[in-house]
Amino acid sequence: MPILANDPNRRSWIEVQKNSDFPIQNIPFGVFLTRDDVITIGTRIGDKAIDLGALHQLGYFKDIPLTDDIFLQDTLNDFISDGKKTWRLVRNRIAEIFDKNNPQLRDHAEHRKAVLFDLEEIEMQLPVLIGDYTDFYSSKEHATNVGSMFRDPDNALLPNWLHIPVGYHGRSSTIIPSGHAIHRPVGQTLPAGSETPVFGPSKLVDFELEMAFITTDANHMGESIPVTEAEDYIFGMVLFNDWSARDIQKWEYVPLGPFLAKNFASSISPWIVTLDALEPYRTKGPEQSPQPLPYLQYEGPGSFDINLQVDLSPEGGEAKTITRSNFKYMYWTMAQQLAHHTVNGCKVNSGDMMGSGTISGPTPDSYGSMLELTWKGENPITLADGSERKFIQDGDTVTMKGYCDNGTTRIGFGQVRTKLLPPFSKEKKK
Amino acid sequence: MPILANDPNRRSWIEVQKNSDFPIQNIPFGVFLTRDDVITIGTRIGDKAIDLGALHQLGYFKDIPLTDDIFLQDTLNDFISDGKKTWRLVRNRIAEIFDKNNPQLRDHAEHRKAVLFDLEEIEMQLPVLIGDYTDFYSSKEHATNVGSMFRDPDNALLPNWLHIPVGYHGRSSTIIPSGHAIHRPVGQTLPAGSETPVFGPSKLVDFELEMAFITTDANHMGESIPVTEAEDYIFGMVLFNDWSARDIQKWEYVPLGPFLAKNFASSISPWIVTLDALEPYRTKGPEQSPQPLPYLQYEGPGSFDINLQVDLSPEGGEAKTITRSNFKYMYWTMAQQLAHHTVNGCKVNSGDMMGSGTISGPTPDSYGSMLELTWKGENPITLADGSERKFIQDGDTVTMKGYCDNGTTRIGFGQVRTKLLPPFSKEKKK
Repeated sequence: MPILANDPNRRSWIEVQKNSDFPIQNIPFGVFLTRDDVITIGTRIGDKAIDLGALHQLGYFKDIPLTDDIFLQDTLNDFISDGKKTWRLVRNRIAEIFDKNNPQLRDHAEHRKAVLFDLEEIEMQLPVLIGDYTDFYSSKEHATNVGSMFRDPDNALLPNWLHIPVGYHGRSSTIIPSGHAIHRPVGQTLPAGSETPVFGPSKLVDFELEMAFITTDANHMGESIPVTEAEDYIFGMVLFNDWSARDIQKWEYVPLGPFLAKNFASSISPWIVTLDALEPYRTKGPEQSPQPLPYLQYEGPGSFDINLQVDLSPEGGEAKTITRSNFKYMYWTMAQQLAHHTVNGCKVNSGDMMGSGTISGPTPDSYGSMLELTWKGENPITLADGSERKFIQDGDTVTMKGYCDNGTTRIGFGQVRTKLLPPFSKEKKK
Repeated sequence: MPILANDPNRRSWIEVQKNSDFPIQNIPFGVFLTRDDVITIGTRIGDKAIDLGALHQLGYFKDIPLTDDIFLQDTLNDFISDGKKTWRLVRNRIAEIFDKNNPQLRDHAEHRKAVLFDLEEIEMQLPVLIGDYTDFYSSKEHATNVGSMFRDPDNALLPNWLHIPVGYHGRSSTIIPSGHAIHRPVGQTLPAGSETPVFGPSKLVDFELEMAFITTDANHMGESIPVTEAEDYIFGMVLFNDWSARDIQKWEYVPLGPFLAKNFASSISPWIVTLDALEPYRTKGPEQSPQPLPYLQYEGPGSFDINLQVDLSPEGGEAKTITRSNFKYMYWTMAQQLAHHTVNGCKVNSGDMMGSGTISGPTPDSYGSMLELTWKGENPITLADGSERKFIQDGDTVTMKGYCDNGTTRIGFGQVRTKLLPPFSKEKKK
């Protein structure tokens, strides 16, 4: 089935600014609270949010096999379970409905009123109930930088790194959508030169510039997903800020991996951009040498050309772009990650999320964390107001943005924006 | 509110064998499929399963604040969310209903028929929807054994171990109840002396003897739970077999921890024994030295005296008990684990599961894994049929059991029993 929704010549009767992330070729999926305090599944064109629950009730999806309440839910999980064919039918239909030459909704004032919202009228929610969240570590530049800093610059990559898309399990319960502030975590750290840990606020809070993909039900327990089919089970992608406390991490992570250093908060952009929408921006990733084992071998371009940037704003101050990277720098592709994840029969469900790992590019101005940008704090960054940063300070806001542009059409992810507050001031109220 | 359900003098009008794990003092909670193909929440006395949904519909829980459908659900999550006071009211009421001196249900044949099931008529399900699963590493003997084998016998414990209840995130999607067979996982391993990995079935599949606790909604994101309150948020415990592939683990786990070596399967006993029911078996854990940081300091007996054993049966052969351990050997208590897990503000939800880590005792016949029992395969175990085992073979069944006995009353967990099948024979069917 062709992806008609990607037609670069189509224009919408909804106004779209020239540099919008959300032209009619995007059609992402999200969940929002409306002005009437109703939670619905929706999409976005330009600066209008579109209530898909209302559209469906008005009959605009007839002939597409969907249950009546598929969009009247507080997560996308059930819709994602419907599978790739349904996602494509729905995106194609949305493109038709909002095509500037289609009068059906365009000229129906009452329906428009029921379906369209200004962005200020809605509040974006977490788009999926995330059952399991896995984070990979798939940028060779990031793994090399970390290995150089903390282990051996001459043997920065660990022996398994070029053979395995290294990953680990993370915490689902603290994944939040853009716009929610978080608190600086407290915990145990080991002061330099000391043999006993101390307790207090982390001094080294960092962001990690990542993207994440959302899966559908992919297999039964015990079955693996071949790398050649893996993309069929990927619904779409979001921007992902994997907040990290470097000092807590350093003390806790050997031998079982990061734990409290990561699970205090992770934030995502609220609109899931489908893999279908990203198709025109497909590109080859880096050459893989040595050749991976057969279950990871994949022909053709398995990556996507997605420009990424991180802005840092001090409290009340101006934002400064502190890094520009690109998803295409990832060494391991999403298909390889998913094939690896399931090669042992691990079950993947609708709404599971898999992070890329920090996406660092080849040059120092494309590194994906403060740890790397300031090289452990040795080279502080100067912000727009003249103040310096080694890591993230209380009151700082970190904003990640991402977009694709092939010269013909630009689509993007919007943003994930999170403010860091001081440590939570008291223990749990009973 | 007193825990009347724990009265050791109470007897039930349901027959209970002398060594049953399920006298009227236990009253665990589980979820089962009935002979009528209905899923319900239930409890168990002796060899009878009790349909709490039916009991509630018949009015037996009147005056306890419960929604009408609280037991007519396929998970315990909502009931667990109701909190400790409600759990206690319900257990106390169940004890009354089944007290041998109470004729209300005892003498009502029609009600009894609607409420009671023979065990052969039901099929136990996973008792909770597990949002997040964390596994700790809290047995000092286990950590010491592993450190001695793979690192340095003279410095077996890593520097953080005595300060932190070390833990990591695991995979929820492959946690299964007792009675389901699993497949030997395939994956990457590094042959001894080689620099490049090979692909194939794991050769070193192992069990890990653990217990796990199930939480209720405990905090808002950002808030920590004080160690002194942590037990209020623990609903109960199960037996837990954390299946492990040692060769996959060895190649993959540095630096981010175990991943595919663990997430192919983990099995639990299906009846959750409440912390209330375990109260009479409370005991002190090992002395903690050095003294933990204040947020982990806890007065009084924080552990439980739970006898544990693992039986291994070859295909069609007789079972042999290959280890006997006890939950009380755990160095870190559950309250300390939960306080540590949330000290950074990590949110804990109803139905989250936290594993203890392998529970090894002080003597070689009390170790909690084949890795330790055979010391990396150097000292094979002889089974009842004379065959030897270094690790688990295809066709073997591993059964874990656990019970408490204070001389007055014995309560137990039943079992978690899992058979290991050969590797899954084909890739995912489209």
